[in-house]
Amino acid sequence: MHRARTAKTLLLIPALLLSSMSASAEHPGLVLTRAGVQQIRSELGRVPLFDATLEVVRTEVDAEIVSGIDTPIPKDFSGGYTHERHKRNFFAMQKAGVLFQLLEDEKYAVYVRDMLFQYEAMYKDLPLHPQTRSYARGKLFWQCLNDANWLVYASQAYDTIYDWLSEEERERLETNLFRPFADFLSVENPQFFNRVHNHSTWGNAAVGMIGLVMGDDELVRRALYGLEDDGLAAGARDDDGGYIKVEGQAAGFFANLEEPFSPDGYYTEGPYYQRYAMYPFLIFAQGLHNLRPELGVFEHKDGVLLKAVGTLLTLSDADGEFFPLNDAQKGMSIYSRELVTAVDIAYHNGGRDPRLLDVAGRQARVSLDEAGFAVARGVRDGIARPFVKTSVNLSDGPNGRQGGVAILRHGDEDLTLVFKYAAQGLSHGHYDKLSISLYEQGDEILQDYGLARFVNIEQKGGGNYLPENATWAKQTIAHNTLTQNMTSHFSGDYDIGSRHHSDLVFFDVSDENMQIVSAIESNAYPGTVMRRTLAMFNDPGGRKPFVLDVFKVTSSEENQYDLPFWFMGQVLDVNVDADSPGELRAMGREYGYQHLYLEASGQVSDPILRFLFMANGRFYTITSVAGERDDILFARIGANDPAFNLRRDAALVLRRKATGNTVFVSVIEPHGSYDPVSERAENATSRIAELAVIHDDARYTAISLVDTQGYERIVILSNADSTPTAVHCLAVGDATYRWTGPYHVAEISAGN
Amino acid sequence: MHRARTAKTLLLIPALLLSSMSASAEHPGLVLTRAGVQQIRSELGRVPLFDATLEVVRTEVDAEIVSGIDTPIPKDFSGGYTHERHKRNFFAMQKAGVLFQLLEDEKYAVYVRDMLFQYEAMYKDLPLHPQTRSYARGKLFWQCLNDANWLVYASQAYDTIYDWLSEEERERLETNLFRPFADFLSVENPQFFNRVHNHSTWGNAAVGMIGLVMGDDELVRRALYGLEDDGLAAGARDDDGGYIKVEGQAAGFFANLEEPFSPDGYYTEGPYYQRYAMYPFLIFAQGLHNLRPELGVFEHKDGVLLKAVGTLLTLSDADGEFFPLNDAQKGMSIYSRELVTAVDIAYHNGGRDPRLLDVAGRQARVSLDEAGFAVARGVRDGIARPFVKTSVNLSDGPNGRQGGVAILRHGDEDLTLVFKYAAQGLSHGHYDKLSISLYEQGDEILQDYGLARFVNIEQKGGGNYLPENATWAKQTIAHNTLTQNMTSHFSGDYDIGSRHHSDLVFFDVSDENMQIVSAIESNAYPGTVMRRTLAMFNDPGGRKPFVLDVFKVTSSEENQYDLPFWFMGQVLDVNVDADSPGELRAMGREYGYQHLYLEASGQVSDPILRFLFMANGRFYTITSVAGERDDILFARIGANDPAFNLRRDAALVLRRKATGNTVFVSVIEPHGSYDPVSERAENATSRIAELAVIHDDARYTAISLVDTQGYERIVILSNADSTPTAVHCLAVGDATYRWTGPYHVAEISAGN
Repeated sequence: MHRARTAKTLLLIPALLLSSMSASAEHPGLVLTRAGVQQIRSELGRVPLFDATLEVVRTEVDAEIVSGIDTPIPKDFSGGYTHERHKRNFFAMQKAGVLFQLLEDEKYAVYVRDMLFQYEAMYKDLPLHPQTRSYARGKLFWQCLNDANWLVYASQAYDTIYDWLSEEERERLETNLFRPFADFLSVENPQFFNRVHNHSTWGNAAVGMIGLVMGDDELVRRALYGLEDDGLAAGARDDDGGYIKVEGQAAGFFANLEEPFSPDGYYTEGPYYQRYAMYPFLIFAQGLHNLRPELGVFEHKDGVLLKAVGTLLTLSDADGEFFPLNDAQKGMSIYSRELVTAVDIAYHNGGRDPRLLDVAGRQARVSLDEAGFAVARGVRDGIARPFVKTSVNLSDGPNGRQGGVAILRHGDEDLTLVFKYAAQGLSHGHYDKLSISLYEQGDEILQDYGLARFVNIEQKGGGNYLPENATWAKQTIAHNTLTQNMTSHFSGDYDIGSRHHSDLVFFDVSDENMQIVSAIESNAYPGTVMRRTLAMFNDPGGRKPFVLDVFKVTSSEENQYDLPFWFMGQVLDVNVDADSPGELRAMGREYGYQHLYLEASGQVSDPILRFLFMANGRFYTITSVAGERDDILFARIGANDPAFNLRRDAALVLRRKATGNTVFVSVIEPHGSYDPVSERAENATSRIAELAVIHDDARYTAISLVDTQGYERIVILSNADSTPTAVHCLAVGDATYRWTGPYHVAEISAGN
Repeated sequence: MHRARTAKTLLLIPALLLSSMSASAEHPGLVLTRAGVQQIRSELGRVPLFDATLEVVRTEVDAEIVSGIDTPIPKDFSGGYTHERHKRNFFAMQKAGVLFQLLEDEKYAVYVRDMLFQYEAMYKDLPLHPQTRSYARGKLFWQCLNDANWLVYASQAYDTIYDWLSEEERERLETNLFRPFADFLSVENPQFFNRVHNHSTWGNAAVGMIGLVMGDDELVRRALYGLEDDGLAAGARDDDGGYIKVEGQAAGFFANLEEPFSPDGYYTEGPYYQRYAMYPFLIFAQGLHNLRPELGVFEHKDGVLLKAVGTLLTLSDADGEFFPLNDAQKGMSIYSRELVTAVDIAYHNGGRDPRLLDVAGRQARVSLDEAGFAVARGVRDGIARPFVKTSVNLSDGPNGRQGGVAILRHGDEDLTLVFKYAAQGLSHGHYDKLSISLYEQGDEILQDYGLARFVNIEQKGGGNYLPENATWAKQTIAHNTLTQNMTSHFSGDYDIGSRHHSDLVFFDVSDENMQIVSAIESNAYPGTVMRRTLAMFNDPGGRKPFVLDVFKVTSSEENQYDLPFWFMGQVLDVNVDADSPGELRAMGREYGYQHLYLEASGQVSDPILRFLFMANGRFYTITSVAGERDDILFARIGANDPAFNLRRDAALVLRRKATGNTVFVSVIEPHGSYDPVSERAENATSRIAELAVIHDDARYTAISLVDTQGYERIVILSNADSTPTAVHCLAVGDATYRWTGPYHVAEISAGN
């Protein structure tokens, strides 16, 4: 093939001249820019983190070039060969384009060109993907979502070799591949493109990015503002049950930025999907910032896009793994490729926060562009500052008025409590209002189950969502919150759930010795109001911190309440004379109970339940005020799961029958460790000697908590008036307590 | 109190003079020696590993001194306060004595003296420990075993301050504490002292070591050769069911060294107890070596004591954790304090093998004596050589004629197979002839359950053996071997089991591309002969190695055979149309089946079972030849376990009903990995395309194994004559195979 000119000659055009050229005419200009490339080239070999990443990527792409280009006829679900091959292709193509720019070696341009022309040759005759499961089938992949992934990366690849190609080659690619591809993802699949959903974000970015590279303003406009007339019926659904069309809702990139992000940068689907959506949001935003600076995309909505990066980082445990709120595969972390890009773009475009360099250093790689280069130089120059995660309250909803997620942290993440009182979270939301999860350092103590899916493992349902995601993982009983009458919140109805959210009552982390948060849910069960208050106490005796959990239920009807603790590890001791049934049966027929076996049950003999368990070589005790009507149930997942799609994890369930108003009061307490090498158990026993509800009515709930040293705490919650200035007075026994505000803690030393 | 002389003046006696003194008159002389102490003192600050350990120990002992001496009235089981306090005391006392010698600070001598006198004051009136569970109740502890631990450490402490004490003080300690203590452990408890058992080893060492320090030859003789007249009845048992007295069996230290160790240094109880017993064996041996060199204790039985240290090190996985054969708590490892002493003594007294310095470096601490000092200097001087574990066959039995344990390893422990065809293993033995376990690096793939006990966790049955150890952990079905007619080997009868052992047929690791071992068991089930052959293949395609497992059963009767695979992790896929029962029931009433729930069952549709599972982010497939009479059962532990003493682990069980002669042929294959951060699955599918038994009779078993590249292996076993020189010929189909020896492998490339 004839080459009109080489890349080298192109780059002899002076940088000064370039900046005065029309933005859309400059290539590369989308993510990499000519000026940026010049600067990076001039400093190669002197910026270790960048150089190391470049070397890894070069090795990887060189291996791909040696193994040859394969663009097989699409056939498989994720995890299968054709799916994984096309996925590798778009990653390799984008990286090869970057290498061409940075290393000026034409073999990379040839590789990108040849691959693009293989796609060009196949695309025009390509039918819909043979797998029919998706509400929006793709062509290269079983769903449009993955086709959009392809175009987001291919756009970047195309941009890097744009000037190196002949005009005729560009014409062929744009006519036969890119424009039909963009039209397929938008006008031909409005149900995919015109939603407020992470799928549409990918679709918008794909169409917008190829539009920017091609200089096609119509595609860019479509990407930013959606299709004007999508022909969709309001109330249409996707195959996950999510809305496709909501009456009056805008579409396109800006709508997707507006709706799901709260002013605090919390993405309503939860951190796992926020991570997934951040890449197209940010990479498209970088392109818009470079080529349509007048849009001010990074300033949009008070800078929410860059703020969201910090929010996402704080939504992780001490190991950097995201809290698995809503549909979320455990193990996904701040070390994912999406977060590398996100951290680099946030640093580069968001005021160069030196704490982000700490994260980048731990990620140990950067994106191969100007943002990554800026980060790598910052790391080299030693200006990083520690990224310390502290307690935080994050609002949910476009205006921050649809509940939220609170995180209480002690010390250097030695104890982390996650409290979800958010909105439904679109189609990936779970029915778990007021649920909690608890971590000691990076280990789960009380878990959120996450999703029921093995992403990209073909043998498990093509790597897609499994039926048990709906029948188990989304249900209320799968979470550490209250289930009433064995029915999920909102009866597990997505329409009803989507109309409501919980509300914050107060959040106060001003005193590191006692951080406290309280939220209320009034709609999950009509006629029942649930309010949960969680306080994390620092132990004055230097032992580990612990959590007091006060779950107050107000209902005019008599109900059965189940409060599970999804503990990790193994049961060591419980003061319940538990019966182990001869046969295990499913605990129910629906709302997730059909997946639970009742392993053992019994009643608490004392007025206090004491449950000791061990996980990861550490001891934990749950101490809970229990009454005569309380059953203690040991439940284990596994019923009606012949394909073993679910983990066999266990819960201790506190069941209170035939009760109207009530309060569940528990202390969740890490208190020791065990070493199998020294065989030594340290602090194997709880320090909670007594726990009692000493007052409970509509106005006040008062708890007494006494430790084994005789040190007593009285915790009083102002139920009726939680305003900060309200003055309260309560007499309990001989003592009278006076305070101002939503809660009061009195501490009484031993001997008083 | 009056001090006759200080330690300092003592040490002015020249070293040359010392060596000519009576051995028993030199103090310290047991583990530390005067000459050694001199040398160590002169080099303090110049041997980093020793100095670092010394600093850690000093900090620890200083904290003990500040917190004060407490010798509470004995009351608790292990894990409880009084038990743990007395245990801390003897460790602290021994360490303080060492610090006194090395640092010449009298506060350490005062601490040892004061503690010893507190024990002296309480001991004479001390009754038996109030807990009555043990067959040999102690005084300070619930069992004599722990009292013996105390004396082993206290002897060392006493030796270090012997010369610093007045004669009158020594007289009081010896009369009121040490001699009655030694008598209590021996003549007053012959059932404890006069056995061949790890308990007695501790008893022997305790009595012998205090005898050496006191210069009491009678005690030393008693320790070495046992009680002449113990008054015990032959056939007496302990509370674990082990023999106390076997007719005609010798007792004492030498008998304990003679009987349980094989010539290869394998200890018949297994590595967990070998680790526990090594400390008294070696520390007493070090004392004998120093004070009774004429006994040549380290040369005894061809140097078995020091050889056993290397053997114990090789009985561990890539993380250094011991294979949990017989009663064994998982997680115990080469990093335990016992192994630090063992490695140091073996290096110092056993030819200074530089590979032991590699282990010591990873242990990151040394014993604070001459052995540890020699090691620390070796590490400092950089003469360590890598300790590489390779395939090994270890004989069991005093003469090495009672079966054994074979370990096949691939590469740098990327795949390790443990094959147990040993003797019963005394009272800690399990009924698992021909059982296997499999590891990838340090992770279990197919597990041995280990013991049912939470050592030193008081809340679990006082930290002692739980009832489920006998009803579950010892039973055959708890292991990866064959159970016939739902009955354990030897019907789980200890007497019968103790009379028999399996036998090696051959072991050949000369070809790293195929290592192979075969053993036979003829007594576990009268009338049934079981022979298991295991071959570890290197994959020519550069993929992971795999194991071929051929389990041949010969029986004149029709039986039901259960072959379980105790896989770790989660089921991904199985080609069985499994039914999940509406109710889970126990699979049987005895022999461990009463603890198993049947989670799912079904029949294999193909002639080959294919079972894919994932553990620790890695993929594994078990491919097994299955017939029409085979049921596939998914079993999970948990039935009849109301106290949750057992882990809820799972097995896939291949059940063959109403069958006489048969052969189970399986491939166990690691083949890929999954990363939850990149969400990428690599090599998620098995490479085994076909597996078939192409010939099977009394003379030969032939297997054909074809991989997905069309590469075929024919493996033929010479069943009737396994001698190395026998010549064989077998025609199968069109092919005729001729070979010499116990097995033959023919490899046929694709296209042939």
